Amino acid sequence: MIETPYLLFLGDAPDMLAAKVAIGIRDWRPDHAVGQLSLPGCGADLGLTEMTLAEAKAAGAKTLVIGVANRGGVISAAWKEVLIQALEMGYDLASGLHNLLRDEGDLVAAAQTHGGTLHDVRVPTVGYPIANGVKRSGKRCLAVGTDCSVGKMYTALAMDAEMQKRGMKSTFRATGQTGILITGHGVPLDAVIADFMAGSIEYLTPDNDPDHWDLIEGQGSLFHVSYSGVTMALVHGGQPDALILCHEPTRDHMRGLPGYSLPSLEQLRDTALGLAQVGNPDCKVVGISVNTQHLGEDEAVAYLAEVEAQMGLPAVDPYRHGAGRLVDALDAV
Amino acid sequence: MIETPYLLFLGDAPDMLAAKVAIGIRDWRPDHAVGQLSLPGCGADLGLTEMTLAEAKAAGAKTLVIGVANRGGVISAAWKEVLIQALEMGYDLASGLHNLLRDEGDLVAAAQTHGGTLHDVRVPTVGYPIANGVKRSGKRCLAVGTDCSVGKMYTALAMDAEMQKRGMKSTFRATGQTGILITGHGVPLDAVIADFMAGSIEYLTPDNDPDHWDLIEGQGSLFHVSYSGVTMALVHGGQPDALILCHEPTRDHMRGLPGYSLPSLEQLRDTALGLAQVGNPDCKVVGISVNTQHLGEDEAVAYLAEVEAQMGLPAVDPYRHGAGRLVDALDAV
Repeated sequence: MIETPYLLFLGDAPDMLAAKVAIGIRDWRPDHAVGQLSLPGCGADLGLTEMTLAEAKAAGAKTLVIGVANRGGVISAAWKEVLIQALEMGYDLASGLHNLLRDEGDLVAAAQTHGGTLHDVRVPTVGYPIANGVKRSGKRCLAVGTDCSVGKMYTALAMDAEMQKRGMKSTFRATGQTGILITGHGVPLDAVIADFMAGSIEYLTPDNDPDHWDLIEGQGSLFHVSYSGVTMALVHGGQPDALILCHEPTRDHMRGLPGYSLPSLEQLRDTALGLAQVGNPDCKVVGISVNTQHLGEDEAVAYLAEVEAQMGLPAVDPYRHGAGRLVDALDAV
Repeated sequence: MIETPYLLFLGDAPDMLAAKVAIGIRDWRPDHAVGQLSLPGCGADLGLTEMTLAEAKAAGAKTLVIGVANRGGVISAAWKEVLIQALEMGYDLASGLHNLLRDEGDLVAAAQTHGGTLHDVRVPTVGYPIANGVKRSGKRCLAVGTDCSVGKMYTALAMDAEMQKRGMKSTFRATGQTGILITGHGVPLDAVIADFMAGSIEYLTPDNDPDHWDLIEGQGSLFHVSYSGVTMALVHGGQPDALILCHEPTRDHMRGLPGYSLPSLEQLRDTALGLAQVGNPDCKVVGISVNTQHLGEDEAVAYLAEVEAQMGLPAVDPYRHGAGRLVDALDAV
């Protein structure tokens, strides 16, 4: 397990979206983060106290968590200096990047010299099976998005928190580095070998009590040409009983794909449901989760009402207004 | 490159479907296969001369090719004896199994002792990029199936052969071990890391002449819950201009998934086309390739006529009757 509390490293993140990992830890395990550390040019700010390595160390931080996800996941030279200094000061490092800490000779050397541990949470540590498609007991909910990074993990975490509060049986199932850093376990799906993707999700969401819900963290989007295969493995390996549609209404193109427009919520509903019913004919779309962070309160409320009327399903921003109505919808399945 | 000619090892293949690799080599590069080698209980027969290792060696065989694909890809103890004996006799080994030759200590030791080479064609040897979705020049055709192992590779190989005969510009693009063993290059897609699947297909099918066609080998099925994520990466990474629907009409359930029925050709058409048009809005379904190996000639002809009328698209068995009409349809795109 990764030692807490953390100092969250934001590096030179170009924007807040790139700091998804750090934001997730701040929001869902605030007690685990003593502060943030940015480099010059950083476009992300978590609102935590900005600290040097020494200040955070004095505040009790044990692990420097790389809280920023780069496309392609490269550990830059600018980052290296800080990471090595952290190891020299007795920190452990934790990362969900593709470019593994353990593949960097200077980090490995510094870790060995100073007795630090390098945690690469992206690396699968299990030999996953090939999916067998056998129906499992218990219930599963999957968040699917019109695009990447629209709030699928938040939605699942918020629903899980609400269900715990109500005394319902639920488990958040992490499928990405942030979720794994938050909960301490899960499947790093985007690093799994293609043939075993769906099987890894079957493994992650095994037979359970009939009234237990797995809240499965979504990845990518069926409409994002770079990552749609990963999403598909979740839709089929997860065998969901319920889908939540996730959307961010201010995007003008798919993330990282200029020229690709977002699908409508109707397109997402029809495509995702049709594919999910291959694995579970009883699957239903039960609600819509909208990430309204770029809208004002009145605008957000109006937009949610409009979507709710248009789709005939509860439409909420679980971060802004709570996940209660999504859990109500799930409870009715 | 793998040294030819081959002796094709069938092991204890339960049926002909399990011997897909060997069948592909026999049909598309018959000059490369001097014979076949079966173990007791083998349910596959290629119709090649059954040979011992010594007989094939005398006939000039240089490489023992594992021509059988097991679910999960395990190298059994029964196979080991033959493989080690082959290395002792001076053979190289070539395999597309998940369970790598290079991970078997006794095979590695025998190869080193006797100067043999272990070819694991399933292992990616390229650091593939993440897909960027940028439109590429040239044209691409992808075969998609109602199920796994319905003839997608055959269809692409037959169309490529017909196009070569007509003097058209075309390239068969292998995405699986059989295709790679046949052509000597390609992407072992089911062994690629999830995040890089679509990017590996972009890499495999780069910019080309405007009148050049890539015939992309399909994998899995959008309706097969074990492998649908792999198929999705082909549909989006391949950016196809044309889809060929592939079907085997005598299956009573999805391969390896009892209880899962096959989709109709209409369902496959609508699902695959809708998803393909996310990456290429001009994509069209141009024809249907039916694997009629389990039907008599009259029955096959009648079935093809029925499908053609039902779907309003040319429906042929390229193995039985040639790929001419599918190429005509492609040429009209």
